[in-house]
Amino acid sequence: MTDRIRRFLRDVDPPTPFLVVDLEVVGQRYADLREALPVAEVFYAVKANPAREILEVLARAGSNFDVASPAEIDAVLNVGVGAERLSYGNTIKKERDIAYAYTHGVRLFAFDSEAELEKLARSAPGARVFCRVLVDNSGADWPLSRKFGCDPEMARSLLLRAQALGLEPYGVAFHVGSQQTVLERWNSALGVAADLFQALEKDGVTLHMVNLGGGLPARYAREVEGVSGYAHAIMTAVTQHFGNYFPRFFIEPGRYIVGDAGMIQAEVVLVSRKAAEDLKRWVYLDIGRFGGLAETEGEAIKYRIGCDAGSGADRTRPMGPVIIAGPTCDSADVLYEKTPYELPLDLAPGDKVQIHATGAYTTTYSSVGFNGFEPLRAYFI
Amino acid sequence: MTDRIRRFLRDVDPPTPFLVVDLEVVGQRYADLREALPVAEVFYAVKANPAREILEVLARAGSNFDVASPAEIDAVLNVGVGAERLSYGNTIKKERDIAYAYTHGVRLFAFDSEAELEKLARSAPGARVFCRVLVDNSGADWPLSRKFGCDPEMARSLLLRAQALGLEPYGVAFHVGSQQTVLERWNSALGVAADLFQALEKDGVTLHMVNLGGGLPARYAREVEGVSGYAHAIMTAVTQHFGNYFPRFFIEPGRYIVGDAGMIQAEVVLVSRKAAEDLKRWVYLDIGRFGGLAETEGEAIKYRIGCDAGSGADRTRPMGPVIIAGPTCDSADVLYEKTPYELPLDLAPGDKVQIHATGAYTTTYSSVGFNGFEPLRAYFI
Repeated sequence: MTDRIRRFLRDVDPPTPFLVVDLEVVGQRYADLREALPVAEVFYAVKANPAREILEVLARAGSNFDVASPAEIDAVLNVGVGAERLSYGNTIKKERDIAYAYTHGVRLFAFDSEAELEKLARSAPGARVFCRVLVDNSGADWPLSRKFGCDPEMARSLLLRAQALGLEPYGVAFHVGSQQTVLERWNSALGVAADLFQALEKDGVTLHMVNLGGGLPARYAREVEGVSGYAHAIMTAVTQHFGNYFPRFFIEPGRYIVGDAGMIQAEVVLVSRKAAEDLKRWVYLDIGRFGGLAETEGEAIKYRIGCDAGSGADRTRPMGPVIIAGPTCDSADVLYEKTPYELPLDLAPGDKVQIHATGAYTTTYSSVGFNGFEPLRAYFI
Repeated sequence: MTDRIRRFLRDVDPPTPFLVVDLEVVGQRYADLREALPVAEVFYAVKANPAREILEVLARAGSNFDVASPAEIDAVLNVGVGAERLSYGNTIKKERDIAYAYTHGVRLFAFDSEAELEKLARSAPGARVFCRVLVDNSGADWPLSRKFGCDPEMARSLLLRAQALGLEPYGVAFHVGSQQTVLERWNSALGVAADLFQALEKDGVTLHMVNLGGGLPARYAREVEGVSGYAHAIMTAVTQHFGNYFPRFFIEPGRYIVGDAGMIQAEVVLVSRKAAEDLKRWVYLDIGRFGGLAETEGEAIKYRIGCDAGSGADRTRPMGPVIIAGPTCDSADVLYEKTPYELPLDLAPGDKVQIHATGAYTTTYSSVGFNGFEPLRAYFI
């Protein structure tokens, strides 16, 4: 917790639940990444947190933006960013959304299928397009399905097809998985990309860009490598696979930029046991899976949770095991049942808890009003 | 699909995705349930779909309402329903929300823990309270965790404690699980309830009500028993366990009342394969898990999906296996990958698909704007 957030809790302390984001951390994370990996052009993944305040900080810092929909395009253009700094990274686009983007000046688009290329050729003629390829992402906390990307052999033929359709085959993209902590994954993925560059060169097509996707972590329950470790792994792999000829490298951090910048304050609604002899208590918070903590599905993201508002008092309070759940009447609205969590034995209804590193993928995931609970409010300081 | 919905698709046909709800079905389902199970007083579970239009139909028909939060209380009172027709069925309530309900006239509250009883005693003095007990709900499509309820032994002592605190111990509640199709579950749950009635009677406390919860199904991919089968099972079990002395029975249908009344129309955004030799196609729709289809988590609810707007043409079109996914950049936004689904081989971007029996647990689950996609719109006809 930053000093600025601690002061906000002390001086403002709005009704729970809410997210508070320290914008200085956002700016610092962007600067850290640029310093650690100067070779990469940063495209902030707007979906992680599309708040205007965050976009403004990153726009001023010089970031580019990865967008997923017309509404995200509008959000970025509305803070004064030129369309040349946007990449439409969603491989699944309605043709009218492609046309919308093109009309507003976007000239860089992702794809992973022939049907998408045909839409792009019709509604974004001449645009730069990059193909997302499937790579191994075992080892990620929020593992990816095969939903995005195609196999490298298909990518090769689709990039040729793009040229035939009058588009500019510009590069390849991959995503090693969010919270990816196995550095070798970057190496094998970059190997796939380099092979595609060489194969296309033989076909007479020169690619210019490798999109490294996201995957840089925020700090949840486990400690993770600092960004310099990632940067080193990426640069080593880049050098190994691309030698002296460097294409452009794009990177699309979302969680890394805003995750640690935010903290959710929630309130304990109830502490109970199901039977007199139960060892574990159930702790019910006023935020759950449908109020912003969707990424606890399958207990995938294990947020750090404290009760001392950053005072350090938790370290000396007697603690006991708990199951943590949300406030809705939905029995699936349980945050942590298998993952061992401990909270103070004297925890009681009305106590405040802090859920750390929640700046990314929380506000926009929250439901419009499930069980009548309003969406997560957010404050930017 | 009803004729009225078919006409709506033909004549109005708004941009996708949207939910359309046939209010005649809502009214009919309520009437069917009253006829099949006249012994039970119906409390509509507002969380299933809190739309004003639905509340109005049910209010006119004479329904009572099960609410989960102050916002749901407001929604029901706002259609002219008296507070005596409300049950605050959430066992997890902030004390200020209890006070809000009490101030607005609500006098019936659920609980499952001592801490909740203490809040109720302070902020809803003298109110009727009922204890939710844990029962076996294996066999349900959307199985319940142990989040709600306590074991029967604890329920007994809590109901005594309620009396000591000046509350009126009114009855017991259970929930056999949503989409519960194993009729024996009702029998064993009612046995637990009857045992509690007898045990409390020995303690000098007469209970008056059994809350049967929800669990009545909508029609998804599998055919399920009609409501008369459930009603018969419930009445048989009631007679067996309660003999000639019948307490009041409350039932809290949500899905049963509004599930089948609604249909989502969506659009195919993309059809693709990941490699040239793949057997299964990926079909991407403009609605997914974060746009209203949250209950496809773990492929629990298997919605019926068609592409012929109810014309029957699907029965003669050549079909092939598909994986069905949503439109966001979230790789977890996959609807059906393991469950075998087939869609027409000539399916193409821009085609409309109908997702049936989606009137319940869709609109309010949808995210406020994940990836920049707006919440699910709904039309009531």
